Formats: sequence, C-alpha cells, structure tokens
Amino acid sequence: MSSVKAQQAARTRQRVLLAAAEVFDEVGYEQASVTRIVERAGLTLGALYFHFGSKQGLAEALMNAQPTTIEPHLESTGLQRMVDITLVWADRMERDPILRAGVRLAVEQGSHGMNDATSFEEWRELMRGHLDVARRAGELREGTCPDRLARFLVGACTGLQIYSNLAAGRADLMERVCDMWDLLLPSVASEAVARGVRVDPVRVSSR
Amino acid sequence: MSSVKAQQAARTRQRVLLAAAEVFDEVGYEQASVTRIVERAGLTLGALYFHFGSKQGLAEALMNAQPTTIEPHLESTGLQRMVDITLVWADRMERDPILRAGVRLAVEQGSHGMNDATSFEEWRELMRGHLDVARRAGELREGTCPDRLARFLVGACTGLQIYSNLAAGRADLMERVCDMWDLLLPSVASEAVARGVRVDPVRVSSR
Repeated sequence: MSSVKAQQAARTRQRVLLAAAEVFDEVGYEQASVTRIVERAGLTLGALYFHFGSKQGLAEALMNAQPTTIEPHLESTGLQRMVDITLVWADRMERDPILRAGVRLAVEQGSHGMNDATSFEEWRELMRGHLDVARRAGELREGTCPDRLARFLVGACTGLQIYSNLAAGRADLMERVCDMWDLLLPSVASEAVARGVRVDPVRVSSR
Repeated sequence: MSSVKAQQAARTRQRVLLAAAEVFDEVGYEQASVTRIVERAGLTLGALYFHFGSKQGLAEALMNAQPTTIEPHLESTGLQRMVDITLVWADRMERDPILRAGVRLAVEQGSHGMNDATSFEEWRELMRGHLDVARRAGELREGTCPDRLARFLVGACTGLQIYSNLAAGRADLMERVCDMWDLLLPSVASEAVARGVRVDPVRVSSR
C-alpha cells in the first residue's frame, strides 16, 4: 500500500473508531447498531467491516485504546507519573469519547457476552512499568510490590469511576482519585517522596 | 394479613428472589426472562409481579439486598469489622447467588438503562457507621475521614471484583482484598491498631 493510501486508511479507521465511541458511550453496546455508527462516521458498512471485522471487533479496539489516549499528556516520571496518569484519566473521562466508550465497554462487557481482561492487564502492565522506575529511584517504601500495587490501582480506579458515574455523573471523579492517593501515598511512598509528590487537579487542568 | 399468611408471603418473595438471582447471575439482565425466573422458582408470574412489580423491580431488590447477606456473618467491631465485611464479601461472592446477582446487576445496570447508586450509597453508609465506631475508639489515624474512606472502599471493592472476575473468574478476589488492606492499613489505622487488625482469609474460611 502506498503511504498516501496507508494514511487514508488510518484516517478512515480513526473516523469509524470515533463514531463508534460516541455511539457506544451514548447508548451502550446492545443499542449501538453498525448502521448508526457508519452513518455517524459518514462512511460505508464496508469500511467498518474492513477495519474491525464486526461490532465486537470495534468494541475490543475501543477497550484496548485506553492507554494511548492518556500517555501523550504526561511528562513526569516514577511515582509522580503514576499519579499523573490517574489525574489525566479522571480529567479526560469528562470529555474524551474514545476513553469513555472504552471504559464503559470494558465494565459492561459481561452483559453482551464478552469476557476479556486485556484492557485491564494492559493498564496493569503500563502502571507496573512506571512503578518499577519509581522503585529503582528509591521512591517506594520497602515492601511495596509494584505489580500488586499496579493491580490494585487498576481495580480501584475502575470501581471509583463506576460509583462516581452512578452517584454524580462523574462530577466528583477527580476528587475521588485524589482521595485515593491521599490514602495510599503514606503507605506506598518513601517518606520524603510522599511529601514531594503532587496530587492536584491543577496538574492537568490547563491541558 | 395473618401471621401465617405473612410468613408464607415472605417465603414466596424469597423464592422468587433466589430464582431471579440465579438466572441474573447466569445470563445477565437482558437474557433473563420473567418466565424463566418463575419456572425456576416453581411459582406463577402473578407471584413475581405481586412482590416485585416488574423485572426491573426484581433487579433493584437484588442490588439492594447485598449488605443483609453479609452482616449476619460478623462479630467484630470497629476497624476489624470493616476488614471482616470485605473478607466475608469476597468469600461469599464465590457461592451466594443473591450477592453475585446484586453485584453483577449494579455494575452492568447502565447496559439496561438503569442508573441507580442506591446499593453503593447503602454500602457506604454501612461502612461509615463502622468507621465512626473505629474513630471513636481511637483506631483511626488522625486525619482519616470515615466518610471518604467508606466511599473509597466501596469504589475500590467494586473494581477489584470486576477485574478479578474478568482475569481469574474471581479465584483471586480474596487475595486482592487482602492486598487492599495491606496497602491501606498503615495509612488509615493508628499504629498499634494497624499491627493488631487481622487481615486473613482464615477469619471467614470456617463459616
């Protein structure tokens, strides 16, 4: 494929993905028809099936697109980066349809017969990487296991989001994420680092 | 209503509830038909509608029945009781269909058009009560807010369960709950209490 054609294909794929995200986010998996998605994208059914194979293929692509919508917004390293990932995530849940759809699909997948932990395991892997950096830099308290902490963070953030969504339409998600770090940092960070790490919505509000 | 009739009505209600729990747990809300539920219960559609009004009424009753399936198993007080609630919960998620259905319905409710935080708020209220007791007994570290900690625990447990269910069919849910307390206790409990509180599956395994 020529590079012009490849670029065109990538753009088409992204248009289908965005349209699908909006529709899934609005009405959930069951109610989202492929016809509605391609109409929203201004494309043909052929384009959808060429790039994603099926509605379920689209849902899988969206569930697994979560980390790539977060990482470009980060500059910090180690434990501060770990905190920042969750702050950016809470902030972008307000307005990024690809992220919102991915999270909704991952949580409700049981209701449409899916059972795929991939997106959770990818978040865990990504977080463990940053926590390994933090450990090598002496930022973690002795005995803190990066892998278990990563596993806990992925689970906790998942549930925080569900509860916040039901109780407050996600209006307090950022506050809940900050609460999480206020509770965790004294346990997991070395004393000097716990004082230095900034848990503050201001870190992402200007983006 | 005579007391015999009242007892009969309560038994019928419980039979419908249990049959519905089994069906919702097995196939989810969408696929669970009221016909299938009353067949499982060996009762009539009339009994279902008399006690719960509709399929959605049944789902709401199950979502809100969670705490009452946990509390009878507890003897401790304060922070230890708080830990024990989560241990009993993790243990009973393995085999109590009413609890499993309640949790599944609460998490997937968005996919069938419901948006009800009641079960989450009731868990939070219940937990805050025990954490208030803990605070009055000097078990909490200064600055630990019972209400925010309760809110965090409800969210965290929700997400731990989802992730554990997808990744391991809940086989490691108890381990994940213990990890949570290992991470939290040093931050939220006063030093002596953090050492004294037992986070151990053995506490519930003999029940």
